[in-house]
Amino acid sequence: MNWENLARELSIKTPSKIVLVVLDGLGDIPHQGQTALEKARTPHLDKLAKRCVCGATDPILMGITPGSGPAHLSLFGYDPTTYLLGRGILEALGLGVEVGPEDLVARGNFATLRDGLIVDRRAGRIPTEENQRLCQILNQALSKQTKPRITLYPGKEHRFVVKFSFPGLSDALTDADPQKENKSLTKTKALRAEAEETARMVNRFIEQVTNLLQSEDKANTILLRGFARYPNIPTMQDLYRLNPAAIAHYPMYKGLARLVGMTVLEVGPEPADVVFTLTKNFDHFDFFYLHFKKTDSAGEDGQLESKIKAIEEVDAILPSILSLNPEVLVITSDHSTPCYLKSHSWHPNPFLLHAATARVDTVDKFTELACQTGHLGRFPALRAMPLMLAHAGKLKKFGA
Amino acid sequence: MNWENLARELSIKTPSKIVLVVLDGLGDIPHQGQTALEKARTPHLDKLAKRCVCGATDPILMGITPGSGPAHLSLFGYDPTTYLLGRGILEALGLGVEVGPEDLVARGNFATLRDGLIVDRRAGRIPTEENQRLCQILNQALSKQTKPRITLYPGKEHRFVVKFSFPGLSDALTDADPQKENKSLTKTKALRAEAEETARMVNRFIEQVTNLLQSEDKANTILLRGFARYPNIPTMQDLYRLNPAAIAHYPMYKGLARLVGMTVLEVGPEPADVVFTLTKNFDHFDFFYLHFKKTDSAGEDGQLESKIKAIEEVDAILPSILSLNPEVLVITSDHSTPCYLKSHSWHPNPFLLHAATARVDTVDKFTELACQTGHLGRFPALRAMPLMLAHAGKLKKFGA
Repeated sequence: MNWENLARELSIKTPSKIVLVVLDGLGDIPHQGQTALEKARTPHLDKLAKRCVCGATDPILMGITPGSGPAHLSLFGYDPTTYLLGRGILEALGLGVEVGPEDLVARGNFATLRDGLIVDRRAGRIPTEENQRLCQILNQALSKQTKPRITLYPGKEHRFVVKFSFPGLSDALTDADPQKENKSLTKTKALRAEAEETARMVNRFIEQVTNLLQSEDKANTILLRGFARYPNIPTMQDLYRLNPAAIAHYPMYKGLARLVGMTVLEVGPEPADVVFTLTKNFDHFDFFYLHFKKTDSAGEDGQLESKIKAIEEVDAILPSILSLNPEVLVITSDHSTPCYLKSHSWHPNPFLLHAATARVDTVDKFTELACQTGHLGRFPALRAMPLMLAHAGKLKKFGA
Repeated sequence: MNWENLARELSIKTPSKIVLVVLDGLGDIPHQGQTALEKARTPHLDKLAKRCVCGATDPILMGITPGSGPAHLSLFGYDPTTYLLGRGILEALGLGVEVGPEDLVARGNFATLRDGLIVDRRAGRIPTEENQRLCQILNQALSKQTKPRITLYPGKEHRFVVKFSFPGLSDALTDADPQKENKSLTKTKALRAEAEETARMVNRFIEQVTNLLQSEDKANTILLRGFARYPNIPTMQDLYRLNPAAIAHYPMYKGLARLVGMTVLEVGPEPADVVFTLTKNFDHFDFFYLHFKKTDSAGEDGQLESKIKAIEEVDAILPSILSLNPEVLVITSDHSTPCYLKSHSWHPNPFLLHAATARVDTVDKFTELACQTGHLGRFPALRAMPLMLAHAGKLKKFGA
């Protein structure tokens, strides 16, 4: 059963609207007590749950903890084991770097080279400002050459992203990184014949940068890894005939949304800003992806109270979203981020779907355990998109 | 995991009997109240549910609305995205046309050709009797030629089915239909080299018919679309070593049953007729597919009361079916047809399995939501067949 083929065959354009609300990292585990969702006061979510069909989704497969990229791809209906997002791409998206079909990106470290050996893979963790100064110098020097166009984007401390723009670049490259210290500067090697020219180009670039940085004390060379081209991914327009928009504040989620063809709308950091942007643009799109980050950040920090507050903030704006009367409203998460683990986890996400065509079940509150007892049962997150499209009347019948 | 390979490897012949009861389009959504199944008085179904294992099935994938063909193939254990049934085949089955391995069928319209342009794709929706008269004339004229044998079967108004019988015909053909009016008569084209001879044969046929109809006022040519050969589908004898029979009154379901190797038994239109035919033939087969159409028709018409009545009629004959003591009895549906939507939908089907080997659960009534809470949970309809075979003792152990 190939959902992508079915989607292309069955999707139709209709005026109905879908709103997908993602509370990042929402799910939790009840370590010594209750989960954040169980503790939070969520009168609007609970009231809504009574009029919905609910379930629990596995982002990838039971037991598999996803990164943000694969978890979101699943929710958007793309099999994340087919569409692999290279580390370089995600790092670039995270820094807000725009990546196009002719671009090759990689993660970089400034490093210290002494007597032909890498003595510090992180150049003594130079300050971010120092990193920004170096990237500026290098970009200025590199701007004189046009083939390929190369740009460095500073990250935190010693980290950066580099983007090579030229037709026909390949990402079949080994890391130009010895991985350990006191080894010599490592060149990239082509993994396939077609990548040989790209490998030579990358190695010339490393040499050139090392020359330009030779007067620096610590950051006098670079290491590159995670070479990645822009993934060849069909857009939501192509697959579902949607005109989708993203309302997300953080660069990585904006980048992920752009990757699947969403228009990224300007929005402020607070839940009220999200409502403002959604309301203002409601007539112009038929699919809205709303991303709320604070639940995940609180989970990563192990801050149960912050997570509860972040949930209650979203609960408070729910009536405003409902007042727009979208044909389909889904509230769920990309993955769990339990406070106890301080990291992403494999636990399933609560899932709630509101639509006139929902076979309303007996779930009466929006929590991890309650949702799982709903009529949707436990299901792969990859099935969320067909469900949303079906309830919005956007899928034709399969066969006769 | 390929179920078809497992089926071939593990199926064994035993005297045990399976009865699969399909209430077509049974599932509904509780639009402003209860579903038909919730409202219906079903004392026998509810009593049975207490002694069964229950669940809810997705016909294809969550969110995908199936046609009758794919939905039934799933229930019979055939992946409907592997065995695609062309429109022409289903149309032919619906008219009760027998289709064999050397046949090519297509849907046809009588149409009006004027000055080289199709001015009416439906020939003014000629009366069905007129259609029957034209098909008779054409069949008589065509009966003089033997290679290929060509027969037209009249449908309603301007619609008919045509069957070409000859070894080696291909269905890799484009529609011979301009789709829009005021375009010229369109020929079919071969989509692959192997179909070129068939394309020439079909185009000669269209020319020949247009000549024969030249004195007609409205219906003076034909359009053909949905060319389909008999699908190359293994029989239930092959796959499961069953000797299966179908008790269905409507032509399409009889045709679907024949497609997978069932013997189609004569039966009247009422539930009592079904019991009579089942009882009479119970010793001669080991698998019975019982099809009840009225639940679907009521759903398509949006008639909740008729749907309730249709359910209660089947409930009433349940004791007679149980008195035959089949080793396995399953009661389910092929797809939902909610009264609110007046069409097939993607909502899952209630599923009940009665067998001495059932791990009886706590479900105490046969409704959409109650069944879903059963021990089988929510599962693909494609798993119904392995479950039935297993509970009938017809599947060997896999591996040692």
